[in-house]
Amino acid sequence: MADVPDKVYYAGVEGGGSHSEIVVLDEQGNTVAEAVGTESNVWVIGVDKCLETIHNMVQDVKKKANISEELKFKSLGLALSGSDNAAMQKEMVRLLHERYPTDSQEYNMCNDTFGALATSAKFGIVCISGTGHNTLLINPDGQTFNCGGWGHILADEGSAYWITHKAVKTCMDDDGRLIVSDYDLSYVRGRIWEYFKLNSWFDVQPYFYKLEKSFVARFTLEVLKGARELKDPFCLHLFYEAGWFLGRSIVGICDKADPSLFYNEKCIQVLAVGSIFKSFDLLKEGFLEGLKPKYPNDVVLTGIRLVQLTVGSAVGAALIGAKHVSKELPIDYDKNVKVLFEAQL
Amino acid sequence: MADVPDKVYYAGVEGGGSHSEIVVLDEQGNTVAEAVGTESNVWVIGVDKCLETIHNMVQDVKKKANISEELKFKSLGLALSGSDNAAMQKEMVRLLHERYPTDSQEYNMCNDTFGALATSAKFGIVCISGTGHNTLLINPDGQTFNCGGWGHILADEGSAYWITHKAVKTCMDDDGRLIVSDYDLSYVRGRIWEYFKLNSWFDVQPYFYKLEKSFVARFTLEVLKGARELKDPFCLHLFYEAGWFLGRSIVGICDKADPSLFYNEKCIQVLAVGSIFKSFDLLKEGFLEGLKPKYPNDVVLTGIRLVQLTVGSAVGAALIGAKHVSKELPIDYDKNVKVLFEAQL
Repeated sequence: MADVPDKVYYAGVEGGGSHSEIVVLDEQGNTVAEAVGTESNVWVIGVDKCLETIHNMVQDVKKKANISEELKFKSLGLALSGSDNAAMQKEMVRLLHERYPTDSQEYNMCNDTFGALATSAKFGIVCISGTGHNTLLINPDGQTFNCGGWGHILADEGSAYWITHKAVKTCMDDDGRLIVSDYDLSYVRGRIWEYFKLNSWFDVQPYFYKLEKSFVARFTLEVLKGARELKDPFCLHLFYEAGWFLGRSIVGICDKADPSLFYNEKCIQVLAVGSIFKSFDLLKEGFLEGLKPKYPNDVVLTGIRLVQLTVGSAVGAALIGAKHVSKELPIDYDKNVKVLFEAQL
Repeated sequence: MADVPDKVYYAGVEGGGSHSEIVVLDEQGNTVAEAVGTESNVWVIGVDKCLETIHNMVQDVKKKANISEELKFKSLGLALSGSDNAAMQKEMVRLLHERYPTDSQEYNMCNDTFGALATSAKFGIVCISGTGHNTLLINPDGQTFNCGGWGHILADEGSAYWITHKAVKTCMDDDGRLIVSDYDLSYVRGRIWEYFKLNSWFDVQPYFYKLEKSFVARFTLEVLKGARELKDPFCLHLFYEAGWFLGRSIVGICDKADPSLFYNEKCIQVLAVGSIFKSFDLLKEGFLEGLKPKYPNDVVLTGIRLVQLTVGSAVGAALIGAKHVSKELPIDYDKNVKVLFEAQL
């Protein structure tokens, strides 16, 4: 009896500060199975936990796809938030091979922004804002640049974590009179004390220092409620500011964009990813203000088109992984996006 | 033969983000021995390492003082940076009793600001700025307030860590054009790349996320060099800003100060602690600007006197520990301070 060759699968993981997703594609680029997992930002949960989270998802999705645990994926693309450091990528891939030898033949690790963008196009600009923030440019020549994406201590402006941080910090500093706010903070202060169960401001420290980043970020839902239901000026201001930084990060990155990425002279398409964009109506005013030129030599944009993915960006991670083993999977990119917002500037 | 009663000792630890100190006092308040240890900020090094650091210092100082390892101190006052959380204090004291039963009969844990202030007076204002920052007020009625002191993620304005963070962030954001700086950043950018051995900005992440806080903070010495030797405008600006926040934190806390703490109408004495004050000449201009009223209802100060300790603030920690076991040690506070700066406003 002749050996039937094993089927070949290309898997991809999209890892974020709140949750992660895995997808398995076949050689035709069709989705075979999907699964979800917990957060996988290595700076928040550490290397060991991150690798374990990936492995658990691999096992889970193989079960769903009815793939033997022993059958290695041809490649596993890992697009994880916070995983830009080359030395760490190398070490994590080494550990994956060592600890979980049957998961995949090859690995390719990159930031989650790459996975998202690869789902929508071969190059261009992506602005991710969920728990954290990153705006990434991939030029046609393969060169990449980012504006933001340095994590919650060094950046993350415009993200949910950042909105919470700014809400907490503004109230703290107002109470201590370090910086007295122009806004009435009573709604947000009240929600903070309830959400974080505070008896004093010191009680908020564990949430920020033990890196419960997704719990911290989720407080943004309270800010959202204040903005939507009460039209609370401080809540509206926080979304305005977040929008400003997201818009500004696009202008910043456009400085390095290849001329071919613009259409109609200086219009730009940006892939918008992450939960913050669900509230784009609240971001819009600040976003448009942030898109205006502010500093000498800023790119003067004449139009903006924000598009969103219609499929999970684990697909892009899988495509990157496949490319890493020299396999170009056939994908119709246009089917993977829809327009969120379009305006002339 | 009658039993000779054991001598009674009161010890104190001052714990900071860069190093720690321990002192042992006798019943007359005289210093019997001193020793130093490594950093002991619990949010940076974790509970276990923090307790071990304390224990190692206890063993070390007992040896120096020729005190038997088995003889417990009557009390050990722990004034540690970052240790304000009541639940954590309780748990740490419990663990000290459990793990190191011969170290001390009683413990009292408080923030390092308390230890510093207790070295100089029974109440008043202290402004600590070393690796981190905290400005604390103790009123005569025992009530305490702080302005700052929430750690490097939520505060620390005006500290060495904050200066480095601002230097790095300003250069990052300028490179990404998120915020384009008015300053020529070339000196500071060059020093950052050398100090942190960067090939890209991503390489700086481990220093900030693996919490090498004291290494990060020490970069401020490069900023200091740029300010002193080159009169680099950006370096001078960083010290100006740090000074502004330190001044502002004093105005902020004065809002809650008992009227008896002011002299000559609205002059205030503040205990200045920490390595940043070694460069007070560079902070001064911003500091004086920060002391000016800025917001409605700000306290209008008419004079400032900054004093510094002439002895280590582990002494104050020991006094607090002794007080906890109802022992008031005789101390001549005036001998423990000298004037750093005095001005009418």
